[in-house]
Amino acid sequence: MTFSVRMSRIKASGIRAVQKRIAGKEGMISFAAGLPDPELYPLEDLRKAADTMLEKEGAKAFAYGLTKGYGPLLDFLTDRMNNREGVECTKENICMLSGSQQGLGMAAMMFIDEGDVVITENPSYLGAINAFRPYGAEFKGVDTDDDGIVIEDLEKVLAETPKAKLIYVIPNFQNPTGKAWSLERREKFMEVVSKYDVVVVEDNPYGDLRFKGEQLPHLRALDKKGQVMYLGSFSKILSPGMRVAWACASPEVAKAIEELKETNDLQSPELTQMLTYYYLSMFDLEEHIREIQVVYKERCELMVEMIKEHFPPEIKYTDPEGGMFLWLELPEGLDSDKILDDAVAAGIAYIPGESFFSFEGVTNTIRMNFTMVKDEQIREGIRILGDVFKKYI
Amino acid sequence: MTFSVRMSRIKASGIRAVQKRIAGKEGMISFAAGLPDPELYPLEDLRKAADTMLEKEGAKAFAYGLTKGYGPLLDFLTDRMNNREGVECTKENICMLSGSQQGLGMAAMMFIDEGDVVITENPSYLGAINAFRPYGAEFKGVDTDDDGIVIEDLEKVLAETPKAKLIYVIPNFQNPTGKAWSLERREKFMEVVSKYDVVVVEDNPYGDLRFKGEQLPHLRALDKKGQVMYLGSFSKILSPGMRVAWACASPEVAKAIEELKETNDLQSPELTQMLTYYYLSMFDLEEHIREIQVVYKERCELMVEMIKEHFPPEIKYTDPEGGMFLWLELPEGLDSDKILDDAVAAGIAYIPGESFFSFEGVTNTIRMNFTMVKDEQIREGIRILGDVFKKYI
Repeated sequence: MTFSVRMSRIKASGIRAVQKRIAGKEGMISFAAGLPDPELYPLEDLRKAADTMLEKEGAKAFAYGLTKGYGPLLDFLTDRMNNREGVECTKENICMLSGSQQGLGMAAMMFIDEGDVVITENPSYLGAINAFRPYGAEFKGVDTDDDGIVIEDLEKVLAETPKAKLIYVIPNFQNPTGKAWSLERREKFMEVVSKYDVVVVEDNPYGDLRFKGEQLPHLRALDKKGQVMYLGSFSKILSPGMRVAWACASPEVAKAIEELKETNDLQSPELTQMLTYYYLSMFDLEEHIREIQVVYKERCELMVEMIKEHFPPEIKYTDPEGGMFLWLELPEGLDSDKILDDAVAAGIAYIPGESFFSFEGVTNTIRMNFTMVKDEQIREGIRILGDVFKKYI
Repeated sequence: MTFSVRMSRIKASGIRAVQKRIAGKEGMISFAAGLPDPELYPLEDLRKAADTMLEKEGAKAFAYGLTKGYGPLLDFLTDRMNNREGVECTKENICMLSGSQQGLGMAAMMFIDEGDVVITENPSYLGAINAFRPYGAEFKGVDTDDDGIVIEDLEKVLAETPKAKLIYVIPNFQNPTGKAWSLERREKFMEVVSKYDVVVVEDNPYGDLRFKGEQLPHLRALDKKGQVMYLGSFSKILSPGMRVAWACASPEVAKAIEELKETNDLQSPELTQMLTYYYLSMFDLEEHIREIQVVYKERCELMVEMIKEHFPPEIKYTDPEGGMFLWLELPEGLDSDKILDDAVAAGIAYIPGESFFSFEGVTNTIRMNFTMVKDEQIREGIRILGDVFKKYI
């Protein structure tokens, strides 16, 4: 049995490796998760929406639909993108996806030929890096600082990379760092990329989880040339297991996604799209999002407060305005993957940051999740983790 | 915006083109469908299953799950494959998919390098041909007769095609012809392919729709070398819109599917997999399948009877033992695509067969669907279509 060259390039997720290291250990406090808190799903409302949908739609909920997506849901999203997200668009710009991850897989198929270069932030979401890898993409990283992607570095990388084909970015509360780009960075970024024939994949699963500061425009809203393929998702604000997400891009790209999706999985399930729509039409999504924001804000602020109190001052941390993660930088020379053994022995898990880089060798960073831990766990976990770190610093 | 080479190879579906030609025309009798009859979905049972699932599982129905699939459903399928389908397997052999189409897309990604040859039956399912096209596959066809794939032709094609990489077949009630392979052909096929380093993708969406004759062993059941990637689906026996399907293959291939799926869409929706499992555990799938078989048998037999009565004797037709389609061969020289204009003017639609071939030029065939038409429509539609054909013969 001979696999394609593509398969030799697939890399196992570093996150899964950590999950194996903590599997079966009881009483662990885990900051290693990447999930929204299931206790915040609007379960009763989803049940009512399911009842009403099954009552009203009958067989339609179980039948084939269009590859592009369920019509009323496309209408809802078009309206929300225009009126809440500040992105002018029509249904021609939108195609439903089975989770944002499908948008990443499709972007890879649609744009990457052997040897093309994908530019990512340093660090970036490894699920994206892994999606691009099989098609022969090479990677270049651009540094980020507290305001987002560093424009001078981006300009340099673009100028010296004629095979740059696609730039993958997460401007809102990035996985793994939790950072959000400033307005100025967004504007300058679009100014710079507009000079090149590159596609920008703007991944925005966390944008609605802003619990501090003002909402800032999406790159897609600043996009004058139709370069940006925006990915939105209900995974973090409604339900990750329904896998309902969408792309908003130029009509040309939206059409290409639809054509490619037809050969890939024909369509996303009608049932999950329809249920999402019934929930949206019967209940107030924005009110539900505000409830999530309140809880995540508390947890994030408590984590930052505890870090200040218990971590050695040499450890840098981000102080996110939204999302699900914050990011630690230990002093150089320390190896967060090795320290994880001690942390796990003390009952604490986190994700070492190295696997979020497209290159190897950055060993002193850590991704911390604050959405899947209760206040008491944050208090106790950060205190214990502080003690572990103090042994090394 | 520059797309990858892959995208230039995507071909629009010929079936969609026909659907556009009949769109908006009222009172059409359509034999052009490719759907199971929604009136046969076990709607009340699915609703009860949904109620019970939401009651018992709560947030779990909306949460992330494993890429490989929902555990209890994997167990059910393992058991059914062993005890009803005659395929020895464990969970190591199985990975859930979002519809069989995802299995085709993944087979393409997993196995096809530029210039590899995919062998298909002549004709074959165009959704498969379209899934393999973007990755640079070339195609060779092997003829079929009433007993299935023609072994001598297969041997010849394999012997003269060193780059043969994958063989795509539908041994049960093939789309488009409705033919099923005999036992002897299945055994000889496996004997022949076992001499080559080729993967066999056995697509079996229609196997459970056998309404005449004996169930015959799957190729996967006759597979001694682990060459066969079997695709099963609930689309035609439960609900197409839930997109619940699975692959059963060697552990090596099942693992590769899982790894690739992680980068492609992370996982199939937990909700649809869980709902399928609740339906299966609360109700009798096999009894439900028997009800579908009775209805489709009646419709198929009526269509064959009407064809005998009303079509010119020069037109050949298949007499399927299951599935959703039968296949017409008009006398050579006739163009079923041109005749479709006359048929549509007379209120009848069908799918011209040309697009089911990986090469152009076979213009005298037609795919007829019998699952989406009621008895009265079959009687009237075939009579009218007979009159249309008589103008040409």
